[in-house]
Amino acid sequence: MRNYIFFALLCVTALTQAQEALFNGQQVSSPEIYPDKSVTFRLSAPQADSVFVTGDFLPSVKVDTPMGKMDGPGKALLTKNEEGIWSFTTEALPPELYNYAFIIDGFKTTDPANPFLVRDVASVMNIFIVPGKQADLYRVQDVPHGTVVSRWYESDGLEMDRKISIYTPPGYETSEAKYPVLYLLHGAGGDEEAWLTLGRTAQIMDNLIAEGKANPMLVVMPNGNVIQDAAPGAGSAGYYTPQFMVPQTMNGVYEANFDEIINFVESNYRVKADKANRAIAGLSMGGYHSLHISRYYPDTFDYVGLFSAAIMAREDQSGEGVYADFEETLKKQMDNGYELYWIGIGKSDFLYEANTEYRAMLDKMGMPYEYVETDGGHIWRNWRVYLSDFVPLLFQD
Amino acid sequence: MRNYIFFALLCVTALTQAQEALFNGQQVSSPEIYPDKSVTFRLSAPQADSVFVTGDFLPSVKVDTPMGKMDGPGKALLTKNEEGIWSFTTEALPPELYNYAFIIDGFKTTDPANPFLVRDVASVMNIFIVPGKQADLYRVQDVPHGTVVSRWYESDGLEMDRKISIYTPPGYETSEAKYPVLYLLHGAGGDEEAWLTLGRTAQIMDNLIAEGKANPMLVVMPNGNVIQDAAPGAGSAGYYTPQFMVPQTMNGVYEANFDEIINFVESNYRVKADKANRAIAGLSMGGYHSLHISRYYPDTFDYVGLFSAAIMAREDQSGEGVYADFEETLKKQMDNGYELYWIGIGKSDFLYEANTEYRAMLDKMGMPYEYVETDGGHIWRNWRVYLSDFVPLLFQD
Repeated sequence: MRNYIFFALLCVTALTQAQEALFNGQQVSSPEIYPDKSVTFRLSAPQADSVFVTGDFLPSVKVDTPMGKMDGPGKALLTKNEEGIWSFTTEALPPELYNYAFIIDGFKTTDPANPFLVRDVASVMNIFIVPGKQADLYRVQDVPHGTVVSRWYESDGLEMDRKISIYTPPGYETSEAKYPVLYLLHGAGGDEEAWLTLGRTAQIMDNLIAEGKANPMLVVMPNGNVIQDAAPGAGSAGYYTPQFMVPQTMNGVYEANFDEIINFVESNYRVKADKANRAIAGLSMGGYHSLHISRYYPDTFDYVGLFSAAIMAREDQSGEGVYADFEETLKKQMDNGYELYWIGIGKSDFLYEANTEYRAMLDKMGMPYEYVETDGGHIWRNWRVYLSDFVPLLFQD
Repeated sequence: MRNYIFFALLCVTALTQAQEALFNGQQVSSPEIYPDKSVTFRLSAPQADSVFVTGDFLPSVKVDTPMGKMDGPGKALLTKNEEGIWSFTTEALPPELYNYAFIIDGFKTTDPANPFLVRDVASVMNIFIVPGKQADLYRVQDVPHGTVVSRWYESDGLEMDRKISIYTPPGYETSEAKYPVLYLLHGAGGDEEAWLTLGRTAQIMDNLIAEGKANPMLVVMPNGNVIQDAAPGAGSAGYYTPQFMVPQTMNGVYEANFDEIINFVESNYRVKADKANRAIAGLSMGGYHSLHISRYYPDTFDYVGLFSAAIMAREDQSGEGVYADFEETLKKQMDNGYELYWIGIGKSDFLYEANTEYRAMLDKMGMPYEYVETDGGHIWRNWRVYLSDFVPLLFQD
């Protein structure tokens, strides 16, 4: 009788080659990152007349918009060889997590040789990491790893089960310790996945904790779009085209129900349930949410982070619901005391002036804060840096 | 003094429109799924000479391969209108989760209007769901949801920390009950993400449990490639081009160390740690692994599932290590008894004959099994169905 032991390696290899030959055309390596940190992009497209690469590693260009000139990603032309393979090699690039796309005869698309992609609102972009320095925080290193939990909580206030992402630090499951909690909020067009995928939160936390720069903590990433039960494609609405501005995200309902999320975390996880061990931070719309949640619950958070926060000056005085008594609650938050009120923004961010005005108001009130100004605009590159800089300041006794 | 309350909706809307105008060209809706279950694909590509859609919703075509003629996905030509928008509308499609890509002037790429993608080995494909019947198991329904945990366990045998995906059923965290466990193994080119992304395991489990068709259970999805600590892009190897056959995946090392995974689960989760409450199943290479693990630990699993299992007849008799004493251990497994040994395969699967021969061997041994034969080949569509059919048979007292 025969043995039925080994898989037919040859057989499967042949199948794979056939599939690739059939479906993908010539295989090229792209992007190729060299030791000197230059990068080559390649694309097999013999029939194309022009191929550009566009991405945030290229110098930005000024683009006309209804709001005036704004920064957009630059593009570079690839050159074609005799085999129909297009290529472009960059200068040495600073360490960073970059994104890019190809533009083939005017058609913007992903790189078929690179299966690593992230979704940002309705767009999908390829990513790559040039290693070193800050970018090493974004890589999966050989260090103890935390756990990422994708879970649903019951929201009575919003009358639905809602998805939430929770990072627990290395050792959480086997320790008996209680941990502090950072609530980390996404921006407009984001969801409970954004800080994990675009923000590299799990990698940043693992690496900062391993380096001894951050205390072990939970990071709770809720969905701030109150009409969604989960991220596009992950909830009961199924697959649809995500929008940048989801309706009703900034009408106070999320902020007014945020205590549900805190209660869920504090009754389901082994955490320290007091002000000294709670932080809240968010980017853009999440900065707006963090501002309002932290003053609406004015004795709840000892650490607040506003990353490129969407604060806009407004002339009329009518704040309703959560937005009522704005200055009074802010003053109450100040009087109650806190350890850190951290504001970070890029010099070319379209919200720069709004943040400047907000700081002037805080100055006038005598409300203390720390302020960090960086280069660049309203981009994930900055938010990853802000998170990396903010987290080491938390829960230091 | 001003209030600083409301986000500048107009401002951001303008920004978004500018970005879309800049980066994405004309916006089209694709795919559009109609109530009659026909589907329209659209692509804005004024400069293209030809656009095809290829995907598993089209009748398969025979393709020459080194192994002879095999099934490959068909393709359909889109037609261009005056505005340069290409479109194609299908007949009414049976309910299913489908994948597709566009071929633009010979260049295969993703649909820029559809941000929902899955990676299969090194390829990324767009997906959509035509609702109804079996496909409703793949949708996120308004039912209680389990939790998906992405965690790392310490492997002494493989000398690394390794990533593992674990589904816990609705109510696990708040109950005091102990649960049975299904170990669910991926195929060649897969990893600890494959059953979740391509296999829709969390949705299938949520829906089967909600319908009362499956008992609540944990589903443990390890990484079967022993040289990897995690899926491509998710581990310390960083981003690289995934291969279909990862070296050393079928050399017995995974099987020999599988007790580590069982021990990890049983010492870290509230589960019933006995044979009656353990199942193991896998697709293709994972079927091979399930076959060998279940006989190598011959008194460990009461339920075994071989989905399109990669069993190949082999003339020589030299099995070493885990593969030694093949028939003896299989007989031992039979003599120890089990509740279910389930074999499923598609009629056009290239492993059909190998499975037929394996069943003949089992018949000769008198080893009982259940056998399900379906249409189709070596495809995820079948494996989702096999999982959906297998799970309701588990842990029924």
